[in-house]
Amino acid sequence: MDEFASIRHWTSGRQSESWQRERGVRLGIGDDAALVDPAAPIAGVASPYEFIMAMDTMVETVHFNEVTMTYEDIGYKALAANVSDIAAMGGVPLQALVSVSVPRQLGPEPMRRLYDGLYACAEQYGVAVIGGDTTSSPQHLVVAVTVTGAVEAGKALRRSGAKPGDAVVLTGPVGKSAAGLHSLLAQRERGADALAGERAAAQLVQAHRRPSPSVRAGRLLLARGTCHSLNDVSDGLASEAWEIAEASGLAVSLFDRQLPRSGSMAAYAGAAGIDPLEWMLYGGEDYVLLGTMEHGDAAAMQAAFHAEGLPFYIIGETSAGTPTVELIRVTDRGELRQPLAKRGYNHFE
Amino acid sequence: MDEFASIRHWTSGRQSESWQRERGVRLGIGDDAALVDPAAPIAGVASPYEFIMAMDTMVETVHFNEVTMTYEDIGYKALAANVSDIAAMGGVPLQALVSVSVPRQLGPEPMRRLYDGLYACAEQYGVAVIGGDTTSSPQHLVVAVTVTGAVEAGKALRRSGAKPGDAVVLTGPVGKSAAGLHSLLAQRERGADALAGERAAAQLVQAHRRPSPSVRAGRLLLARGTCHSLNDVSDGLASEAWEIAEASGLAVSLFDRQLPRSGSMAAYAGAAGIDPLEWMLYGGEDYVLLGTMEHGDAAAMQAAFHAEGLPFYIIGETSAGTPTVELIRVTDRGELRQPLAKRGYNHFE
Repeated sequence: MDEFASIRHWTSGRQSESWQRERGVRLGIGDDAALVDPAAPIAGVASPYEFIMAMDTMVETVHFNEVTMTYEDIGYKALAANVSDIAAMGGVPLQALVSVSVPRQLGPEPMRRLYDGLYACAEQYGVAVIGGDTTSSPQHLVVAVTVTGAVEAGKALRRSGAKPGDAVVLTGPVGKSAAGLHSLLAQRERGADALAGERAAAQLVQAHRRPSPSVRAGRLLLARGTCHSLNDVSDGLASEAWEIAEASGLAVSLFDRQLPRSGSMAAYAGAAGIDPLEWMLYGGEDYVLLGTMEHGDAAAMQAAFHAEGLPFYIIGETSAGTPTVELIRVTDRGELRQPLAKRGYNHFE
Repeated sequence: MDEFASIRHWTSGRQSESWQRERGVRLGIGDDAALVDPAAPIAGVASPYEFIMAMDTMVETVHFNEVTMTYEDIGYKALAANVSDIAAMGGVPLQALVSVSVPRQLGPEPMRRLYDGLYACAEQYGVAVIGGDTTSSPQHLVVAVTVTGAVEAGKALRRSGAKPGDAVVLTGPVGKSAAGLHSLLAQRERGADALAGERAAAQLVQAHRRPSPSVRAGRLLLARGTCHSLNDVSDGLASEAWEIAEASGLAVSLFDRQLPRSGSMAAYAGAAGIDPLEWMLYGGEDYVLLGTMEHGDAAAMQAAFHAEGLPFYIIGETSAGTPTVELIRVTDRGELRQPLAKRGYNHFE
């Protein structure tokens, strides 16, 4: 069972929508974040703003190890991944709670460095760290973060709003984080001297260790009122496109030639003799935003993004039909339609 | 370094109170839960209710193992411990996010049972489960829960409000959970046949596995407006009294003879030939509430609790002075004053 099947097996049908609604819930399990009306359950009146809540956990050996991340990076990225879930709803991040489960042999200084990184991210995105928990752990470090945000009531951008004929848009290049991870693991195996495309690799390592959640892009997408659906690219482009396809009940086509390739990723992949498409489709952890809107609105949105100095790409389109995701490649033999698997990237296997 | 010293080392001085206040924070790190005004940061107006947020994590081999808890119990208790933090502020629990880090060898059914228990607790306390995260774990199960609640603005009951000359009050017996754990571990070592006080032990095991957070008691304490300070007994009576003493800047004296001893705990301890005082002072996980208020108000509160069919005990008093906690025992040789250590209970060591 994959993660989503497991979650459905464990949680679906347990609490009715109306029961949850009485407790202030406006959107429950199944999107990047949940939405609650903070005033409704007690005051009985609707608030003009909804509270956004998300939770994301990083586990040693699953999401990082001593080669791929410093302790500062672990703290930074644990919060950044959560802030990205707020960005994916079009919201403003506000507060965070942090639970660390600390291996007994780890002294206080590595944890101090972890919090250095976490607070650096908090300052970058204006997040108040307000609580959490500290426990010991038998062996591995686990960092669970809960983040809150605010969004204008009823305006949050969900996965489920895509319409057939929409343009598929992306707010930045994908695959850099996976390429950075590749270079870190290659460095370990072959030694730093053998490292291909060294200067490019440094940028990619930075992208892997210190990702930038797309809060400004999310707010801009929400403000114009034309974005139909939105996800952040945490599990990989293919996986996120699948989520929009399934939640909205339609097919997604991505055009190979329109996928943005970052210069540093292309340079590194070229030097290493690797086709970067796997990183771009399945890499994840790039924390750019993937959305859909009408074609005309996409062109206007692109102009608005460029006016703000932000990247914006139109990379595909949606169509009525069974939920699926395909990549369209133009080759010598004509147009090839390649179905994309609904999988994420398994970092260490 | 103990947990509190570590948290201070990692977090203190990182974000100013005014910076946090702009982000809606009304109470940050250092109490049972944090308080935020959900409307302030965006709407710029104060809400009549504050949002309460807490996070509590349970780790296999640290908080439970296969002998002490079933999977249903793990789910139930993970949420109950969080609900207790809402009760400790005088609030109403509302929503929860759940992050599970699942060992690879564990099939979906144990996790299904964990969620059975979690949703049973959610139904009991009216908590909507709205999201979370699922990751794999190299070896041990980790369950992190974030819970929200609501409380009338400015009314939440904190640790820091105790005044010299207050009565110290307790909303139920302590030590049952630790006694239940003792019986579970003894059962494993010596076989079920050798189990002392079997009927009593069953009740204590239930107290350990399915604790009852004191939401009604917390609301009653808040409603009367006379409670100066409040904590839930998660880490043990001595440790919680220390937290009130330090946060309020005064000394706490507990009277040995006034500490409530549950019948089942006394019966089990008698049969096992153990003095239960260690469990009562350092056991924790009883999730009753420990607070302070003026003596006259304590008598009135006791009447109000009894009218609702709830237990209520006056167990000590506060006095001006350096923060400290002592136990006063009346013996043949007169009154003995025994300082209590600021430690919790180490379950498995």
